[in-house]
Amino acid sequence: MRQYFPILDWSRTYTRDTLTNDLIAAVIVTIMLIPQSLAYALLAGLPAEVGLYASIAPLLVYAVFGTARALAVGPVAVASLMTAAAVGELAAQGTPEYLGAAIALAFLSGLMLLVMGFLRLGFLAAFLSHPVISGFITASGLIIAASQLKHILGVPASGHNLLELLASLWAQLDAVNLPTLLIGAGATGFLFWSRGGLKRFLAARGVPPHRAGLLSRTAPVVAVAVTVLLTWVFGLDRAGVAIVGEVPQGLPRPALPPFDLALWYQIAVPALLISIVGYVETVSVAQTLAAKRRQRIDPDQELIALGGANLGSALSGGFPVTGGFARSVVNFDAGAETPAAGAFTAIGMALATLFLTPLLFFLPKATLAATIIVAVLSLVDLGAFRRTWAVSRPDAAAMAATILVTLSAGVEAGIVAGVALSLFLHLYRTSRPHVAIVGQVPGTEHFRNIDRHAVVTAPEVVTIRIDESLYFPNARFLEDTVQEQVGANPNLRHVVLMCSAVNDVDASALESLEAINHRLADGGLALHLSEVKGPVMDRLKRSHFLHDLTGGVYLTQFDAMRALAPDLTCRTLAAGRRDLARNGNGA
Amino acid sequence: MRQYFPILDWSRTYTRDTLTNDLIAAVIVTIMLIPQSLAYALLAGLPAEVGLYASIAPLLVYAVFGTARALAVGPVAVASLMTAAAVGELAAQGTPEYLGAAIALAFLSGLMLLVMGFLRLGFLAAFLSHPVISGFITASGLIIAASQLKHILGVPASGHNLLELLASLWAQLDAVNLPTLLIGAGATGFLFWSRGGLKRFLAARGVPPHRAGLLSRTAPVVAVAVTVLLTWVFGLDRAGVAIVGEVPQGLPRPALPPFDLALWYQIAVPALLISIVGYVETVSVAQTLAAKRRQRIDPDQELIALGGANLGSALSGGFPVTGGFARSVVNFDAGAETPAAGAFTAIGMALATLFLTPLLFFLPKATLAATIIVAVLSLVDLGAFRRTWAVSRPDAAAMAATILVTLSAGVEAGIVAGVALSLFLHLYRTSRPHVAIVGQVPGTEHFRNIDRHAVVTAPEVVTIRIDESLYFPNARFLEDTVQEQVGANPNLRHVVLMCSAVNDVDASALESLEAINHRLADGGLALHLSEVKGPVMDRLKRSHFLHDLTGGVYLTQFDAMRALAPDLTCRTLAAGRRDLARNGNGA
Repeated sequence: MRQYFPILDWSRTYTRDTLTNDLIAAVIVTIMLIPQSLAYALLAGLPAEVGLYASIAPLLVYAVFGTARALAVGPVAVASLMTAAAVGELAAQGTPEYLGAAIALAFLSGLMLLVMGFLRLGFLAAFLSHPVISGFITASGLIIAASQLKHILGVPASGHNLLELLASLWAQLDAVNLPTLLIGAGATGFLFWSRGGLKRFLAARGVPPHRAGLLSRTAPVVAVAVTVLLTWVFGLDRAGVAIVGEVPQGLPRPALPPFDLALWYQIAVPALLISIVGYVETVSVAQTLAAKRRQRIDPDQELIALGGANLGSALSGGFPVTGGFARSVVNFDAGAETPAAGAFTAIGMALATLFLTPLLFFLPKATLAATIIVAVLSLVDLGAFRRTWAVSRPDAAAMAATILVTLSAGVEAGIVAGVALSLFLHLYRTSRPHVAIVGQVPGTEHFRNIDRHAVVTAPEVVTIRIDESLYFPNARFLEDTVQEQVGANPNLRHVVLMCSAVNDVDASALESLEAINHRLADGGLALHLSEVKGPVMDRLKRSHFLHDLTGGVYLTQFDAMRALAPDLTCRTLAAGRRDLARNGNGA
Repeated sequence: MRQYFPILDWSRTYTRDTLTNDLIAAVIVTIMLIPQSLAYALLAGLPAEVGLYASIAPLLVYAVFGTARALAVGPVAVASLMTAAAVGELAAQGTPEYLGAAIALAFLSGLMLLVMGFLRLGFLAAFLSHPVISGFITASGLIIAASQLKHILGVPASGHNLLELLASLWAQLDAVNLPTLLIGAGATGFLFWSRGGLKRFLAARGVPPHRAGLLSRTAPVVAVAVTVLLTWVFGLDRAGVAIVGEVPQGLPRPALPPFDLALWYQIAVPALLISIVGYVETVSVAQTLAAKRRQRIDPDQELIALGGANLGSALSGGFPVTGGFARSVVNFDAGAETPAAGAFTAIGMALATLFLTPLLFFLPKATLAATIIVAVLSLVDLGAFRRTWAVSRPDAAAMAATILVTLSAGVEAGIVAGVALSLFLHLYRTSRPHVAIVGQVPGTEHFRNIDRHAVVTAPEVVTIRIDESLYFPNARFLEDTVQEQVGANPNLRHVVLMCSAVNDVDASALESLEAINHRLADGGLALHLSEVKGPVMDRLKRSHFLHDLTGGVYLTQFDAMRALAPDLTCRTLAAGRRDLARNGNGA
């Protein structure tokens, strides 16, 4: 019971101090979330109130089911972009079908996360390698920033990829609306400055650093308030500044998403991708914050909590939500101790929908675009490519493919291409494992690579050490390797496979071993194994392989050589002892 | 030069004896190939002469480029079924478009194999695990056999999968043509008997076993001759027996395949699948036969040879070819010593197209169907599932998926499903590697799993040994595992990752290690590594990880424990020595 309801755990030790801390954090996060929720709804192509709705129920649900103490769930940039990409294929912005599809997307994504949680399928997130995620988020950030430029410039623009988008903006540069540009550029500049400069500014005026950091997080609300005032006072909406306009007042009403199988079929893949990307982000933020206080999160329970949050969003007219990085860090820094802080934030957002929406009428879309641009550009990490390249070329290639395909063909194609390429390169790597022909180090029972060490070998025995588990990607490689050795050594009588680095063996590798055994037997050679690990031996025992094996299975490589080339091992041991004695005398 | 033209190698030592042996093998293979080539053309939905054409040029090309001495290239059952499936989507049987698409398929498949050969991409075949191939061939064999039943029964039947096919046959049972059934069933029975009974029959009459085995291979030609005679003498074609009819006489004329980009685009995926399946079969047959004479083949050169053979087939009006298992074994058993045997077979087939085609006019299609059924049912291996299940459940699941999807949704879907599932299960397995918490075996420097051995540990140190390379499928698992240990041990001060089984580390795992390091530091813990292998250390050195690492990197786990818990290691070593001394006294 407690496993599925972590609230039963932390609520028992809830004190007045905890309450105070959670309340303070909730106030700060609410101030940050109001403009963000409106902005991400705009990014997703949805009415502003949908952003508010997605910031109430999901937070309440997460407070009940979440295991991360300071995670802030709600609308985030990348999931909003993915929503826009998925729903934009199916309906025109502003239509009820568009809204319905976005709600259905949250619902389906929630269902998928719940199912994955109950089936403990969190490992699905393992398909997304870090370089692919990093490349995807960087590319998404660039696309999002570019897509918001039209709001800053006050021109209509569209395009299916970054180049089209930028070309479309370029073609309309002469139609730029000056008041919009002033508001947009001003807000963007102010928000960029607020990220570093404002904190220093406050600190210089005697505000303690921690409080200065938290205060600088209110900059978006300040930008909203100032631009609303300017627009209202100077009537800028009549001068061409696009405004949010009428936002329905009042709490969201519970409603079921459209149950339309054809629609669900069309959004299944986007829903899966949003689920997995959102989950990966959520868990990595949650784990980072939990570690700071030596707490732990349960990754499978997080699937359930995030699934519940998305169902909650869908049933209250919201769109897909996940754990947001920036907001969670603010929540944590502001002192949030339990998920109750999230519930209090939800109450704050509910109050905003009840009382603040009339004030948002004159809110310029350019201000929201500025909020988005500043938020997402902090996600863009172009240096990651250089760092990855230094460590691993295949990973860098997967990252580059993800970035380029995301920028040129969209978010879904980008993430699929990245996953496919990283799987392919992973298989390529394991399909050609490191292989060493080993010989005996004189005077010892150790066997080392003949290319790196001065070792002795017997002409009638070859020992092949494979530094990888044996499974289908390298089964044929194993056959080729053995065949090559046999072809190259005409006096060969014994082939020994040294299995010290073999952690696993699958049916393909077993068949390859059987084929190798039979082929060697046909050529008059015996196959032996040495240093086979327990689990691998168990599997061999369940097959016919050991029964047919022409040679033996030796506990150690030294045992194998003692049996197959007794003269050699004695000679080298003796030689080694002589060396040892001589060196000992010399020292 | 010699690498790409293996003929330069073996032709230098070509003797009169070799010539005799190759000629004898060629005669036997030609006799076997004539009915097979016609039958597989029928299976592919192509005119009979296309089978003959695909048995001339490809064999000559392979003789120049092939590295396998006794491999017999030509039309085979599975590739013919795959051709029918691919081309059947695009055009109606009997139209020039159908023939053109089949030729284009051979051309594109040849090009792909050549490119793979020059880029040394033979590892692509590693994507097909043995259980997937085995399941695919079994399912293909069942589909092929079912598809040929209509020729045996003399009724039209069609269907997109096995069930539809069988239902369609069942619905027409009352329309069965009796003379066709008699010929078909008779030929099938005779051919089944010839596989075992004929050899024993001949052996009982004093024919030496080896010759009896080869003679029994002429059974299909005998069946063809007898049924042609029966049909001609009794005019069975007028009684409803479908016959091959007019087969154009004369050698194939060189011609280019249709250069139609839209067509090529449509057949690209089937061409790739045919290439890879054909290549896998070719290499495994070639390697099996080469091993019997301690010869070797070059897997990458085989790509080039098979690619050339397919281009040769396409340019002479043929369809996709690969190395056939049964025919290669006969070629080998009949004494073929070099690829020249294949060239002689090609000459035999050329003579057949020049002079024998008029004799094929009255050949009943039922006889060809019988040849196909007997050939493919030997490929069906239902016991493989049981054997695989005993060894590995995930492999058995991949095999079952391949069989079921191939039977229900067709060859392409089947092979794609099998590959996808085996990749998925492989990732699943490596995403949750075996992990052991280890402690010191008293009195030794060895560290073993605390769950299996009586070991000692220090409360402030936990050592985690991961029995798998660290890469993206298990990067998150690693983070979760460390987090779990930290959560479970409140007195912990040091975490040691013992890397003795880690063969590789990728960018994802590195980032996870960095995250673990920072999270542990946030909680006041230090991270250490022990027993890191050379290549892994090289990669760590190229990143920031070692610079940021809060703990040390120890050559051995014993060094790590000596540094982190000096009291413990001394105590257990001393205790061990006491035990040793006591046991020594007791003995």
